[in-house]
Amino acid sequence: MGTSAFEYYKANHDQFLTGLTDLLKIPSISTLPEHKPDIRRAAEFIAGELRGMGFDGVELIEGGEDRHPLVYGEWMKAPGKPTLLIYGHYDVQPPDPLDEWKSPPFEPDVRDQNIYARGAVDDKGQTYLLMKAVEGCLKGEGQLPINVKFLIEGEEEMGGEHIEAYVRQAPDRLKCSAALICDTEMFAPELPTLTTGLRGLVYTELEARGAGHDLHSGMYGGAAPNPFQAVAEMIVNLKGPNGKIRIPGFYKRVTKPSAKELAAWKRLPFNEKNFMKKEMEATALVGEKGPSVLQRLWARPTLEVHGIRGGFTGEGAKTVIPAVATAKISMRLVPEMDPKEVIKQYTAYVKKITPKGIATKVRVLSQAPASVVSTENRFIEAAAEAMEQVFKKKTVYMRSGGSIPIAGLFHEILGVPVVMMGFGLPDDNLHAPNEKFYLPNFYRGIEAVGKYLALLGQ
Amino acid sequence: MGTSAFEYYKANHDQFLTGLTDLLKIPSISTLPEHKPDIRRAAEFIAGELRGMGFDGVELIEGGEDRHPLVYGEWMKAPGKPTLLIYGHYDVQPPDPLDEWKSPPFEPDVRDQNIYARGAVDDKGQTYLLMKAVEGCLKGEGQLPINVKFLIEGEEEMGGEHIEAYVRQAPDRLKCSAALICDTEMFAPELPTLTTGLRGLVYTELEARGAGHDLHSGMYGGAAPNPFQAVAEMIVNLKGPNGKIRIPGFYKRVTKPSAKELAAWKRLPFNEKNFMKKEMEATALVGEKGPSVLQRLWARPTLEVHGIRGGFTGEGAKTVIPAVATAKISMRLVPEMDPKEVIKQYTAYVKKITPKGIATKVRVLSQAPASVVSTENRFIEAAAEAMEQVFKKKTVYMRSGGSIPIAGLFHEILGVPVVMMGFGLPDDNLHAPNEKFYLPNFYRGIEAVGKYLALLGQ
Repeated sequence: MGTSAFEYYKANHDQFLTGLTDLLKIPSISTLPEHKPDIRRAAEFIAGELRGMGFDGVELIEGGEDRHPLVYGEWMKAPGKPTLLIYGHYDVQPPDPLDEWKSPPFEPDVRDQNIYARGAVDDKGQTYLLMKAVEGCLKGEGQLPINVKFLIEGEEEMGGEHIEAYVRQAPDRLKCSAALICDTEMFAPELPTLTTGLRGLVYTELEARGAGHDLHSGMYGGAAPNPFQAVAEMIVNLKGPNGKIRIPGFYKRVTKPSAKELAAWKRLPFNEKNFMKKEMEATALVGEKGPSVLQRLWARPTLEVHGIRGGFTGEGAKTVIPAVATAKISMRLVPEMDPKEVIKQYTAYVKKITPKGIATKVRVLSQAPASVVSTENRFIEAAAEAMEQVFKKKTVYMRSGGSIPIAGLFHEILGVPVVMMGFGLPDDNLHAPNEKFYLPNFYRGIEAVGKYLALLGQ
Repeated sequence: MGTSAFEYYKANHDQFLTGLTDLLKIPSISTLPEHKPDIRRAAEFIAGELRGMGFDGVELIEGGEDRHPLVYGEWMKAPGKPTLLIYGHYDVQPPDPLDEWKSPPFEPDVRDQNIYARGAVDDKGQTYLLMKAVEGCLKGEGQLPINVKFLIEGEEEMGGEHIEAYVRQAPDRLKCSAALICDTEMFAPELPTLTTGLRGLVYTELEARGAGHDLHSGMYGGAAPNPFQAVAEMIVNLKGPNGKIRIPGFYKRVTKPSAKELAAWKRLPFNEKNFMKKEMEATALVGEKGPSVLQRLWARPTLEVHGIRGGFTGEGAKTVIPAVATAKISMRLVPEMDPKEVIKQYTAYVKKITPKGIATKVRVLSQAPASVVSTENRFIEAAAEAMEQVFKKKTVYMRSGGSIPIAGLFHEILGVPVVMMGFGLPDDNLHAPNEKFYLPNFYRGIEAVGKYLALLGQ
């Protein structure tokens, strides 16, 4: 790649920011049915970008009634060169609690070099920078140094059923030399980072039913089964106060990371106190005794409660023993664990610990295996080199406690290495109010991806 | 009282039903600020009734910005005769969950001799029948056999602060020989019942805070304190799976009911299986081992969770570790317990069991002592007799697990016996969807109260 791509990047910061702002304005919340039209608008927006930059075969791949479209496009005019499959997602998490946002989640606002909006970093900002990197290359040089396929989904935040089915069904069309995912974060500001491992996820709803209808707590309290009491008991039975998950067999496949990996993690600039006080604004770190914090986040499974639906939560004092309580409970898995086996263990254990008078049901809302990639191949090495050139610092390797199901799937079905470059920062408020993207990283991300294409084309 | 009051009662069923329907249409939910105008409309409705039947000094007693008006009126033209202070409340519980109502909660619907609406039995229906009993007497006979004062409140479902302050402040105006409360239920259909004991209540919100903001459960799960996990642990620490409350000192003042009372309860037509299967639609009764079901409901304290606010409870799979979870937790108290002492014990214990990394706050939303009245005085005996004459069955004495704070207060401040006649049925769905009032009981309630006035006047 010549300098002209980079001249294009430097000259177009304003245009990039305007385009990103337009994309962030679309409330493409995949889990809320009322936002279906917004989802489609976001997909059309992505397709329009791909067409605009001269990609071929751009289309919205439909997946039926309840599915959100995939956006596909390709540029295959570099015979003999590798093919990179580039992935991102245009859907976002719900923005609640709304009243904690300083500016409305779908009215992007730039403050102190950050752009604030739901999806700013996860993953519209990072999806958009991938497209701008490729666009700059095509506009600046008239061609790409390698072949590129884009596959952008709209269901990442709701389980990604559509893309999973499609990857399994159309591996020939998606054939590539490597996949690039841009949906992770840097370990620290100014520290170029490649993510080489992700935790898996099993997300469930645990419903507990007591009486056939809501009961007055005065008239029935003392004899009526209370589903909230039951859910509390089950949660404590699932995970003890010491952070240990009590599901029989849960840990049996969990292994320790290699000594080399653990040593590398120890060298990372991780300040436990800052992590706790500044990043989390918490007064203590919790979890299992023994493993370090990074180990607990990256290489140990967890179980978390996200909310409990039912009963009375409004203002005032309604004295009800509710008929039903439904807890949202998820588990993060490490690479050796099999989501299907975990679901079986969990479901059987829930049945066993269901209190007297309570009927429970488990619904699995999403599941994905964990994944780890080897750092020893040219696609990872070139990515490390590209980021190093742009950020002027040695690239570090980390894992992430989050889950990107598609990473495992690309590896499994397409048989290719999966490169996870990320430009988010630890304080970007992913999935939380005031999500943001640090704009210097947005622009450097574009350059780093441009550089990566160039290195792969050499 | 001559036959003409009773002729009036018999001849005016349609008018009574129409009037009740009008009152039930007003969504006077005291805990929801947006219903303030409805509260006032309901208060005006009651005042209009009292004026219409010829009561004197009818007024809305205001209690300031956040308070709902009391309605007062009196008829004091029976010198030398006793004075009865009649209490009811015109406010209602919130109707949620709305989707479980077969007909809308504020569009009264008559099906199978029942009128369905929020407040049908608790307490608009029973408040209205008190007024109709007095009205019939005045219209049918031109006068009342005794003196009557009405004091109707609009905050019963939100803690009753206003009436408590007013009773403490104006005991001279409320001076009476006995108080009549019509806000309880019959032990079984066709079984006239007087309630002689009530449980007290302490209703709290327990707030748990972890990190300073919501966190992504992938990125932070394994190290971040989760307020939902903390609340679950605290709930189990507050009440064990065996139904025993674990707050130190909680049971120390609890005594067993007298052998005579326990024996009387044993004679009540109570079918545990029907209570569980038909009334509650449950598969098991829970609670402490040892005390019978009626003892557990009437003479043992309990602790119940009503709902837990916070986190994500919408559709789909939002992977958040919420910053805050707030549990609504109440305790029912038996007569020997002191709410203030219980609040101290609870607050101290919550502090003690607060998990690491979590900050807790306890807010007390309402509190009331339990009460027991002696069955050996003429006001109770006349009430038993009046009900017996109308229902043609011997009146039984029961306690209730619910709380009517005003009962204890009338006893304490005015120094009078408190008579609790109730015409609700066990399946009336108090505080739950499809609340109803059995219309034959509505009409017989009017007659029984009319008969009571006549007996007291003799």
